[in-house]
Amino acid sequence: MEPRSLLRLLFLLLAALVLLLIHSTRSYLHDLPNSSSTLRPVLNSRPRPTITTTVSSQSSHESDVPHHPLDPLTIQEINTARSIILSYHPFSSSPSSLIIHSLVLQEPDKPVVLSWHPGLPLPPRHASTIIRFLNSSYSLTIDFSTKNITSNPLPSSGYPTMTIEDMNSACWAPLSDSNFNATILGRGVRLSDLACLPISSGWFGPQDEHRRLIKVQCYSAEGTANFYMRPIEGLTVLLDLDTKQVVHISDVSPDIPIPKSSGTEYRFDSLSLKDNHKTKPLNPISLEQPAGPSFEIENGHVVRWAGWEFHLKPDPRAGVVVSAVRVTDPETGEKRRVMYKGFTSELFVPYMDPTDAWYFKTYMDAGEYGFGLQAMPLVPLNDCPRNAKYMDGVFAAADGRPYVRQNMVCLFESYGGDIGWRHSESPITGMGIREARPKVTLVARMAASVANYDYIVDWEFQTDGLIRVKAGLSGILMVKGTPYVNMNQVPKNEEMYGTLLSENVVGVIHDHYITFHLDMDVDGSENSFVKVKLEREETDQKESPRVSYLKATRHVAKSEKEAQVKLNLYQPSELHVVNPSKLTRVGNPVGYKLVPAGTAATLMDPQDPPQLRAAFTNNQLWVTPYNKSEEWAGGVFVYQSKGEDTLAVWSDRDRSIENKDIVLWYTLGFHHVPCQEDFPIMPTVYSSFDLKPVNFFEYNPILKSPPNLEKDLPICNAAASA
Amino acid sequence: MEPRSLLRLLFLLLAALVLLLIHSTRSYLHDLPNSSSTLRPVLNSRPRPTITTTVSSQSSHESDVPHHPLDPLTIQEINTARSIILSYHPFSSSPSSLIIHSLVLQEPDKPVVLSWHPGLPLPPRHASTIIRFLNSSYSLTIDFSTKNITSNPLPSSGYPTMTIEDMNSACWAPLSDSNFNATILGRGVRLSDLACLPISSGWFGPQDEHRRLIKVQCYSAEGTANFYMRPIEGLTVLLDLDTKQVVHISDVSPDIPIPKSSGTEYRFDSLSLKDNHKTKPLNPISLEQPAGPSFEIENGHVVRWAGWEFHLKPDPRAGVVVSAVRVTDPETGEKRRVMYKGFTSELFVPYMDPTDAWYFKTYMDAGEYGFGLQAMPLVPLNDCPRNAKYMDGVFAAADGRPYVRQNMVCLFESYGGDIGWRHSESPITGMGIREARPKVTLVARMAASVANYDYIVDWEFQTDGLIRVKAGLSGILMVKGTPYVNMNQVPKNEEMYGTLLSENVVGVIHDHYITFHLDMDVDGSENSFVKVKLEREETDQKESPRVSYLKATRHVAKSEKEAQVKLNLYQPSELHVVNPSKLTRVGNPVGYKLVPAGTAATLMDPQDPPQLRAAFTNNQLWVTPYNKSEEWAGGVFVYQSKGEDTLAVWSDRDRSIENKDIVLWYTLGFHHVPCQEDFPIMPTVYSSFDLKPVNFFEYNPILKSPPNLEKDLPICNAAASA
Repeated sequence: MEPRSLLRLLFLLLAALVLLLIHSTRSYLHDLPNSSSTLRPVLNSRPRPTITTTVSSQSSHESDVPHHPLDPLTIQEINTARSIILSYHPFSSSPSSLIIHSLVLQEPDKPVVLSWHPGLPLPPRHASTIIRFLNSSYSLTIDFSTKNITSNPLPSSGYPTMTIEDMNSACWAPLSDSNFNATILGRGVRLSDLACLPISSGWFGPQDEHRRLIKVQCYSAEGTANFYMRPIEGLTVLLDLDTKQVVHISDVSPDIPIPKSSGTEYRFDSLSLKDNHKTKPLNPISLEQPAGPSFEIENGHVVRWAGWEFHLKPDPRAGVVVSAVRVTDPETGEKRRVMYKGFTSELFVPYMDPTDAWYFKTYMDAGEYGFGLQAMPLVPLNDCPRNAKYMDGVFAAADGRPYVRQNMVCLFESYGGDIGWRHSESPITGMGIREARPKVTLVARMAASVANYDYIVDWEFQTDGLIRVKAGLSGILMVKGTPYVNMNQVPKNEEMYGTLLSENVVGVIHDHYITFHLDMDVDGSENSFVKVKLEREETDQKESPRVSYLKATRHVAKSEKEAQVKLNLYQPSELHVVNPSKLTRVGNPVGYKLVPAGTAATLMDPQDPPQLRAAFTNNQLWVTPYNKSEEWAGGVFVYQSKGEDTLAVWSDRDRSIENKDIVLWYTLGFHHVPCQEDFPIMPTVYSSFDLKPVNFFEYNPILKSPPNLEKDLPICNAAASA
Repeated sequence: MEPRSLLRLLFLLLAALVLLLIHSTRSYLHDLPNSSSTLRPVLNSRPRPTITTTVSSQSSHESDVPHHPLDPLTIQEINTARSIILSYHPFSSSPSSLIIHSLVLQEPDKPVVLSWHPGLPLPPRHASTIIRFLNSSYSLTIDFSTKNITSNPLPSSGYPTMTIEDMNSACWAPLSDSNFNATILGRGVRLSDLACLPISSGWFGPQDEHRRLIKVQCYSAEGTANFYMRPIEGLTVLLDLDTKQVVHISDVSPDIPIPKSSGTEYRFDSLSLKDNHKTKPLNPISLEQPAGPSFEIENGHVVRWAGWEFHLKPDPRAGVVVSAVRVTDPETGEKRRVMYKGFTSELFVPYMDPTDAWYFKTYMDAGEYGFGLQAMPLVPLNDCPRNAKYMDGVFAAADGRPYVRQNMVCLFESYGGDIGWRHSESPITGMGIREARPKVTLVARMAASVANYDYIVDWEFQTDGLIRVKAGLSGILMVKGTPYVNMNQVPKNEEMYGTLLSENVVGVIHDHYITFHLDMDVDGSENSFVKVKLEREETDQKESPRVSYLKATRHVAKSEKEAQVKLNLYQPSELHVVNPSKLTRVGNPVGYKLVPAGTAATLMDPQDPPQLRAAFTNNQLWVTPYNKSEEWAGGVFVYQSKGEDTLAVWSDRDRSIENKDIVLWYTLGFHHVPCQEDFPIMPTVYSSFDLKPVNFFEYNPILKSPPNLEKDLPICNAAASA
């Protein structure tokens, strides 16, 4: 045997050993699907252990039966689907080669769901699955009643969302490469301290198309749980994601030191608090509802609160899906339709550094990683207040076995002291009127941790008919190693691509775009999109001492291109979805308006490959005619996609959208120039947009809401320990 | 005696009778100053009766002594100032002709305040007063130690803020005019049902300059407390505000009916709830802190919480003033300066209807009406949560007598379930970390009712060093009568100037601009304003597969014009105030950034008289060098001003602002196209902007904040009545 072969063998053995060692220190093994669980998503208020998945103690026979056409697949349905798939030719020939990338409910057609109501039998259940088998992709539909499988056409480019197993195995694969290990050791990092991340490699030309690729970059976890702050800068491993073979190793900056571990820790139990000069801790403050919450959840998914009714479910790709949203008209008692389906369709997170180890970091967190797959259990009392209730997710693993993601969603009533409405009579009239109403809302929350970054998504329902969709950004920055420890060392014209956050640590500038699918159904499916333009009107000054005023004119968008909205402060419009065939008592079309915020617009070149793939961020708002197959703004197969199947492509067909079933697509945008306050972990930055009734109700729907009275409020005592 | 004279005499008698009748049904008489009160602003948590002013039960000798150089005038000081003024020539010759429009503390010069600390004697106290005497204005400074009065120069145009007495007497004055009364009766309104509003008449040319003028419009209060919804459309009385003589009566649309009263009531006790189909009332929810609040208030005005320290006081013009804001550095324990003074400098509310009865409605609520004078007592449990504490205002009436405005400001800790920071380790690394921290803030709130409209202003302090300035808009619309009861009656080309809200009621389109004075002192007074521009950079594509990236470049503003910022989504900048002489450990200048929101920009013609007067809204942000006399963005004398003394005029001097004591001016803007949900009272619309630390701290200042633990939370029971 040649020495080289022998050396390689030794490295392989070492690598295997290390892999075992690391694995044994990670909890992922505990996260493997457990097919003996019989839980489907249920809500309960008891804090759960915050491990990722487990057999739930909430088992119950009832919970295995879907009750609503939109209920997610149950554990039993996932098991059934799996056995149908395994017995399907060609998979049956080599079941061990089968990888299930997605296995979810295929929702019934919209008219079927809309015509269903409690008491009627459920429409036939179907599952939709995306599979890799012997390096080919399959998109299949499974009919539970007939056990039949039908095959669906595949997108012209791209690959399915990675499985957790893809991501995990990619992290360890480089250890099978001796050159990689040598490089790591050469950087002074023990292989046992190595922590690696799977980074979607994007698409930058034909060379990347013929196979699934991923890039792996690594960090030193020595001395800290926050390894993200200790990059082995410049080292990038290109892997074949199917074979897990190393394709190429790039090491462009071997001389950049690995930043220190001190000051990077954030776990409370591991922090030294002695040198913390912050004043005494705050007295406890808590949202208390001793009489219990005001909302109810029917059969695990149908939520009712303050006249609202909607279906809420976890989803492995979208995170949470809010469906069949209706609100009660206070005047008639009628439950009126507002939105058929709303969810996070895609995220786009381009980093602003074009160099070798960074240019490809242009994440699409939903389509590449699975926004729901990355949503960990929420931490009771801290991620959600004490009065929250929790919902579990039930997902399928790569082998098709179901597993439970506990406490993935929480639901709670919120009151922070805001005012619903108020009026006092001033001394001018002196009528002495003092009327005010507290503002209480209902929040449905999930939080996804896509490696370093944490995204909080809130669907907040207000009693006045407003829906606020709120995104919070926290977690840990993706940072770059640098030789500098102080700005005074940086040559005048050197491009940093970010901010020096700590010695040898640069926080690289990046953007976040979160694109929401909003299938509005305002009092029915046939709606129109109306731009209410606000423009200066000059007066005839013989008529008025005023030179100008602001005039509103309504423009109904006939087709998609008329509804591609780039917001402009100096040419403002209100963005209405109206039902042209339903008028209020005094003749206004009933509607909802989208009130933008978080409006950062992409500044990248539209022809830049990442921007082509994320062309759905080219406008803040788009409106498309409803099409069941158009749910994912970046396309079904986002991974390594070329941008042939994005919202921008669909919209450019310029289909008619007037008085049709229409879907709004709104993108929340953030430019993030990191600052030292973001180190070692970021205070949450929130932004949100609103869906607000506009002439939907005949009058203020909370006009008759009662004020708070002392006699109704709880009687509380300090906790024993306080 | 001629019949005409006789008729006029009869009308005058009738008018006087009616005036008495109405007065007796209003509480204003109870609001007259009460000189026997010995209260100065104090905080207490006991809910107070919500009458406007009274002798407080909180009297205490201590409370009559100012403890801080910025403490407002005490009741004793106001009484002292009054006697000094009355004995001052020429006022002493005719004390009854004296009208005091403003009597407030004249703050010591900034260096004096900054060099003072507890334990040192207070610097000499001075009062600043604005007086009308025999139709002339006076601006005087009173030295309490010497009893001397010195006279200050007057602005070249405009008049002082109206007194409450101005506004009130203007409402009744038209009743002394027989033609007016005849017109009212002709509209079918009993004089006893009449409710009138004093409307600042603005400035539209030389004809308006030689005397104080006001316009009065009236409503029918028959059958509702919400008379605002029952305009006597088109009837406008022009009054001389000094003589209270009717100058002119305009009645342009006598045929427009007065809208019905049904559906306009909003007082809970007067509403019929039987036809309310909203689901069952919500279970009580409350912010509970049984161990008490975490903040302390020293001597009534100095607030300390979570490392923050600031001085808080009511102000008759600004509403509330936040001063001497410092935050504790968690690393060093040092109290570091952030902002010297922040307050609402001016509001501009132009209505977008150029016709006779509407064109002049271009309110400046602070300078014309007194934003603090209009701030009524907050309603415990509804305007502020149960855990709030309250602060009174002490103001001077037109006769110089002090009076107490109870519960004008509230202060409370808020927790709505938001997350301060969080991170979970995803299955990718599987480290099983689950760290999250709840987000608790401190809110200082006031709410001004400028006739129909209610403005809520919150100063919210976060534990991470962020200050959020939040404005809420609620209250009642200013509406216009119309002959139409349904949109199908409106001729195609007829301009409505708004939305048909109810039968015969149009909600007229208007804007709101709230301009804040923000005297930032980041770690000292000498600061610079830096625009961090984010721009697309094209790459050399031989170097990178990326075509473009986003590059940040810092531009230090040398003079004022470089800091006149019109926000643009496609040319974004971060807006930093930095201390160029103080660097972080790694060499970044310490700073705060202003994070805009509520960015609606004015669309009016810059040469439109109202826009000339409100030219301070021409940009969203301005930066000026500190000048003690530049506090009011529209000028000291805003009433009937010509715009000769606005922020825009000061800024166009283009003074140097680099490494100087600088003041930021930010304007929150709203376009308001009313909708039926705003009838008969508006659900609150909130917007806010942030002052956020950017490389001010070496690292995340809430890194070490503890998580919530069950054992620390209160033990609560449902109230007896629940």
